[in-house]
Amino acid sequence: MREDDHVTTIQFAKGHGTHNDFVLIPDVDGQVDLTPAQVAFLCDRRGGIGGDGLIRIVRSAASGEPAVADGPEWFMDYRNADGSAAEMCGNGTRVFAKYLVDHDLADGPEFEIATRAGSKRINLVPNGYRTDLGEWRLSRLDEAQERGMDSVVQVVGAAEPLPALSVDLGNPHTVIALPPSVDLDGLDLTHPPKVDPEPPHGTNVEFVRAHAPGHISMRVHERGVGETQSCGTGAAAAAIATWWWGGQPVDHLNWNVDLPGGRLGVHLLLHRVALSGPAQIVATGEVTLPE
Amino acid sequence: MREDDHVTTIQFAKGHGTHNDFVLIPDVDGQVDLTPAQVAFLCDRRGGIGGDGLIRIVRSAASGEPAVADGPEWFMDYRNADGSAAEMCGNGTRVFAKYLVDHDLADGPEFEIATRAGSKRINLVPNGYRTDLGEWRLSRLDEAQERGMDSVVQVVGAAEPLPALSVDLGNPHTVIALPPSVDLDGLDLTHPPKVDPEPPHGTNVEFVRAHAPGHISMRVHERGVGETQSCGTGAAAAAIATWWWGGQPVDHLNWNVDLPGGRLGVHLLLHRVALSGPAQIVATGEVTLPE
Repeated sequence: MREDDHVTTIQFAKGHGTHNDFVLIPDVDGQVDLTPAQVAFLCDRRGGIGGDGLIRIVRSAASGEPAVADGPEWFMDYRNADGSAAEMCGNGTRVFAKYLVDHDLADGPEFEIATRAGSKRINLVPNGYRTDLGEWRLSRLDEAQERGMDSVVQVVGAAEPLPALSVDLGNPHTVIALPPSVDLDGLDLTHPPKVDPEPPHGTNVEFVRAHAPGHISMRVHERGVGETQSCGTGAAAAAIATWWWGGQPVDHLNWNVDLPGGRLGVHLLLHRVALSGPAQIVATGEVTLPE
Repeated sequence: MREDDHVTTIQFAKGHGTHNDFVLIPDVDGQVDLTPAQVAFLCDRRGGIGGDGLIRIVRSAASGEPAVADGPEWFMDYRNADGSAAEMCGNGTRVFAKYLVDHDLADGPEFEIATRAGSKRINLVPNGYRTDLGEWRLSRLDEAQERGMDSVVQVVGAAEPLPALSVDLGNPHTVIALPPSVDLDGLDLTHPPKVDPEPPHGTNVEFVRAHAPGHISMRVHERGVGETQSCGTGAAAAAIATWWWGGQPVDHLNWNVDLPGGRLGVHLLLHRVALSGPAQIVATGEVTLPE
């Protein structure tokens, strides 16, 4: 951080995981206190740097976040593009981990990071990094046990509402298996899909096409955002629902999930789920914050 | 430019003029030969840096562009976000000029720059930089002389097609003065407006609300792009059309044009037009090009 004549200049990096992209702010000793307006500026794709969110890379002990002071050394301070604090982001954990490894701040093959949603275990794997996302559950389980679905979603181009399954990964997901008559690429996701009954706090909605055992492709409409290129927890929810509908075969615990932004791996571990995929840092530099 | 182990790293800056944003590649001695795929990567908002276009800052004599070898010292090598070469960009000229001035490569109060559309004169002015865009003309003049309009555009929410005027600024524009019954902010510009008769090479379309003599606000749908935050030649076309409809008063040759991305000044000089407005460089750094 450098302040000259009331101008503050800070270091940044820009990276992405399957085109879910982030502004990274290295702040190992907790010197950078970004206001929500400054975060929004940095995530502004035209007026600033641009990203789906911002990740401050800070030593837990220096982070000013009491809950993580006794946990893993590095805290992933994740902010939404509007400047609000968020618990964490699955794709973001890989980009955070890659920054740590590239700068010799963490070593493989396994380490933990601190997030607002608790500690997360990271492994270096052939396709990049794997993050243990923790426990998942079918959030409307009673209905799901009976029928494999617990709600319906009206899809443009489908004659009638399609059945859907609700999966909770800390955030809410509604997964729809598309019938052959509905084209995944042709779906109009410019507006939020209508889910019935409506989830009380909204939901991410995943549209899935199954290709082969352990291989699906999907598109996702993120709650409050719109369609995105990739959603890590969405990929996990889509694999979980497809595995559930298929009778939970124990020989299909590893899934390839193709999203518009790239391929993610989903690994089912009994009641836990892990996500693997690539992480890239494309640029580094310095940015001048508005006064 | 640095090449290690087949990895190429180059310097960049990111800047914008009224939120029309650009990746700037300083290349004073013409060492950086970017392929269309590399330009597309750099302009990719999620996988790369992100910008509406890319501007290579290169000495004309070293630019490899024979047409500008004998002109002004600095050549604005403008590329579209898809990697194709483009003639120039009005908002881009100010960001290019600011980079030159900030790095002592050009001095005010007036200098010229080379573009693929010829030399452009730049002036330092109180609101930033002013660029002489050159000559304008009413491209369907015969009809316009008679009726002040030469085509019609169907607008969602308007009972009938609205009259429009075609203005040529090197690129084609169609300008519509909105009646009081149609809300500028409420216009749906998610699809290209239908212009009748259809211009042979497409057109940018500007929707204008007049506020006071010399003051308009507008939104623009750019040909092949969609709605944008700002379009320099579009602002000029909108002011020209409004001035034309108003009887070409000689005491209203300077216009304030409010766009979603900010305010531009348009200055009518008989058959020429100049554009003024802010320019900002927000970040600098280095970026690794894909192999």
